[in-house]
Amino acid sequence: MAKINPLSGFPELLPGGRVVERAVIDELASVFELHGFTNIETRAVEPLERLAKGGEIDKEIYLLKRLSADASDDASRSHLPLGMHYDLTVPLARYVVENAGHLTFPFRRYQIQPAWRGERPQEGRFRQFTQADVDIIGAGELPFHHDVEVMTVMAEALDRLPLPALTLRFNNRKLIQGYLEGIGVNDVTPVLRVLDKLDKLDRATVVRMLVEQERLDERTADRCLALATISSADDSFVTQVEALGVRSELLATGLEELHAVVDASRSVTTQNVRVVADLRIARGLDYYTGTVVEISMKGYEHLSAVGGGGRYDALATDGRTTYPGVGISFGVSRSVVPLVNRGVLRGSRPVPSAVLVAVVSEEERAVSVRLAQQLRNRGIATEVAPSAAPFGKQIRFADRREIPFVVFPGMDGSAPQVKDIRSGVQTDLDPVAWLPPEGDRRPRVVARF
Amino acid sequence: MAKINPLSGFPELLPGGRVVERAVIDELASVFELHGFTNIETRAVEPLERLAKGGEIDKEIYLLKRLSADASDDASRSHLPLGMHYDLTVPLARYVVENAGHLTFPFRRYQIQPAWRGERPQEGRFRQFTQADVDIIGAGELPFHHDVEVMTVMAEALDRLPLPALTLRFNNRKLIQGYLEGIGVNDVTPVLRVLDKLDKLDRATVVRMLVEQERLDERTADRCLALATISSADDSFVTQVEALGVRSELLATGLEELHAVVDASRSVTTQNVRVVADLRIARGLDYYTGTVVEISMKGYEHLSAVGGGGRYDALATDGRTTYPGVGISFGVSRSVVPLVNRGVLRGSRPVPSAVLVAVVSEEERAVSVRLAQQLRNRGIATEVAPSAAPFGKQIRFADRREIPFVVFPGMDGSAPQVKDIRSGVQTDLDPVAWLPPEGDRRPRVVARF
Repeated sequence: MAKINPLSGFPELLPGGRVVERAVIDELASVFELHGFTNIETRAVEPLERLAKGGEIDKEIYLLKRLSADASDDASRSHLPLGMHYDLTVPLARYVVENAGHLTFPFRRYQIQPAWRGERPQEGRFRQFTQADVDIIGAGELPFHHDVEVMTVMAEALDRLPLPALTLRFNNRKLIQGYLEGIGVNDVTPVLRVLDKLDKLDRATVVRMLVEQERLDERTADRCLALATISSADDSFVTQVEALGVRSELLATGLEELHAVVDASRSVTTQNVRVVADLRIARGLDYYTGTVVEISMKGYEHLSAVGGGGRYDALATDGRTTYPGVGISFGVSRSVVPLVNRGVLRGSRPVPSAVLVAVVSEEERAVSVRLAQQLRNRGIATEVAPSAAPFGKQIRFADRREIPFVVFPGMDGSAPQVKDIRSGVQTDLDPVAWLPPEGDRRPRVVARF
Repeated sequence: MAKINPLSGFPELLPGGRVVERAVIDELASVFELHGFTNIETRAVEPLERLAKGGEIDKEIYLLKRLSADASDDASRSHLPLGMHYDLTVPLARYVVENAGHLTFPFRRYQIQPAWRGERPQEGRFRQFTQADVDIIGAGELPFHHDVEVMTVMAEALDRLPLPALTLRFNNRKLIQGYLEGIGVNDVTPVLRVLDKLDKLDRATVVRMLVEQERLDERTADRCLALATISSADDSFVTQVEALGVRSELLATGLEELHAVVDASRSVTTQNVRVVADLRIARGLDYYTGTVVEISMKGYEHLSAVGGGGRYDALATDGRTTYPGVGISFGVSRSVVPLVNRGVLRGSRPVPSAVLVAVVSEEERAVSVRLAQQLRNRGIATEVAPSAAPFGKQIRFADRREIPFVVFPGMDGSAPQVKDIRSGVQTDLDPVAWLPPEGDRRPRVVARF
């Protein structure tokens, strides 16, 4: 094997970076479970016909092919062409319909898995990437309060992550549609697509596009902008929208829903998450029908959204029952990999071990192994030195792995000792009572931002 | 979407089955980390040239192809053909060489991930399957005591799993090779391949194969069998081997190593794991050079091994440095999926929630949401009823999900109450002090075997 280069678009983390990724995943999973969301994993592949939608995404689908397909292999022949899933929503929809008879609804699940897209790699955009999705799926109906629930759960989880500040930008499709219809715009989707460009183009350009491409009159285009430029981190968006003077039942419902989602999400975020009503947010995808949300990360706005989601009234259908859903996805790889690669986040050590037990001589290795097991019995991650080198060398071995404590077995009846190799302080050790300080027990995430 | 059928060879678990799989994965990870093994994840794909070895496995490799490869896409063109990894050893070897400058050796890692093989599906044999691997890799050298270490760590972890009894069968390639050379067999590999059939064929047939195919004389064939039929759950194999009267330094070393591994592994298993020295075990793969091991599960011997591993003196090389390794792999899907599918193991409930908080009316939902949050603040997984149905219906909702406790918010100033819906006992609830019994806090694995 000669020198090996990384594969573009398929990021892998060194052990210290993986500490960060696992901390993020564990925190998300822990909050989702506290709220009663069950974990599932779906297979990596779906029949191609379920993945291909005839849109842009189709080009990015990875197909799975046997290197040497054996014509006599029945199982192989009977398979439809298979592709790797490019998100966790398509597999969820299929899982729900396939297993509907065995699930209870509303079905509350989270899923943290990789997905694959053959797109051009760039920072935060990968060909294999892990995302964390939390959704609630109803059978036939799904009351609006689940929108509030799933968004607050994600807000609470994100608020605890060791990441740069995150912003949740909410909007509501009913609000936009009710407003646009109220000002006489009937073909809403293409207008939304233009308004979505407000983060890249200036206001005048967007107005001109609405007039020239979408054939709106100037006043209507201005009124579109008047809504889309409302953004507030408090409740003032409600009076701002009302002040625009458009009356519509759909608009009123959407405004009320948006207010409820924003209010509840804000109430659970205290540290790291900012909650904003941003009436420009539309989310390109056609299937959203109510709440929509996008997540951005401070200083990494060029990654565009690090997550998003919303309400879809028809996630799936089996012909008889329609399954509405509401959910939100967070890009674990998209946020974590750039932060780790830039050295902004790292694990406090690349190994779980809080303790290295030194070895006096190979003949006495068993003494160190027993001592290590005593510590492990009380939950202290411990490894034994790989060789009976001079103690100075064993300490340097621990230091290279950033293991904070070295334990020396007692010799000739003396007590074992423990050394904090950062401070150099060395004391007697009672192997059935000693504990490292709480902060040293597990690798922590160390941030520099 | 019409009725959807499962995809043969790509098993998925319902939430209750996933509880079992996660319990197994969490227990393995927890023991590996207590012993200081670091977790990594590798990408799902490797360059095809790294996967294809010219052997039987090649036919089973899944290739990844873009549905619509864009010739103008530089990143795509520059890629070598990619295949899905079929185990976690090939990716580990590549990861170690690629990142050698950033790792400390011996590199102790575990990895729990899916792998893909396009083989004919049958019980316990899947096209996508999760396995748990634990390995220690040295740079240049790797003392034998790491064989003992990695095998005892897996033995300790397996001993805690909620599975039917597991047997670890150990052997040692040096022992076999030293013995066979000592009795005049020089081409060891084909003889091993025949001896490996002892679990399916009777003794006489194997002797005949050795004589006819491998051209051994009858007496030598008998002496091969004399070794290969030794199997003991205690240390008696040592004297049994010695009694065969073959003298060889390699044999003596192998016997000593086997004794050390078996002895140490047995010392950490108290419940569910049996440790056996079984001198028939050879493991087909050519790269093992010392310790070899196979894992079987009681009542599921037809699945053949549910895991295995051993010592390989050249896991990888970068031209200058050779990386020896020792490791063992456990088949999570191979063991768990058949047990779940047969109803032998299940989760005590399909949701994390220990508590369902009832809702008095939609207007008062916020009261229930606040009460739920008080319980979550103390680590109790809690969900709020999806609708303000009559309480009887809300209790049945909890019952269908096997959630053990229903909490009723206090009305008109009265205290909230908690009902154990299994016993029907209902008492006042102090939301800042009450805890469910330890056994009810998380879903447990329920076994019927």
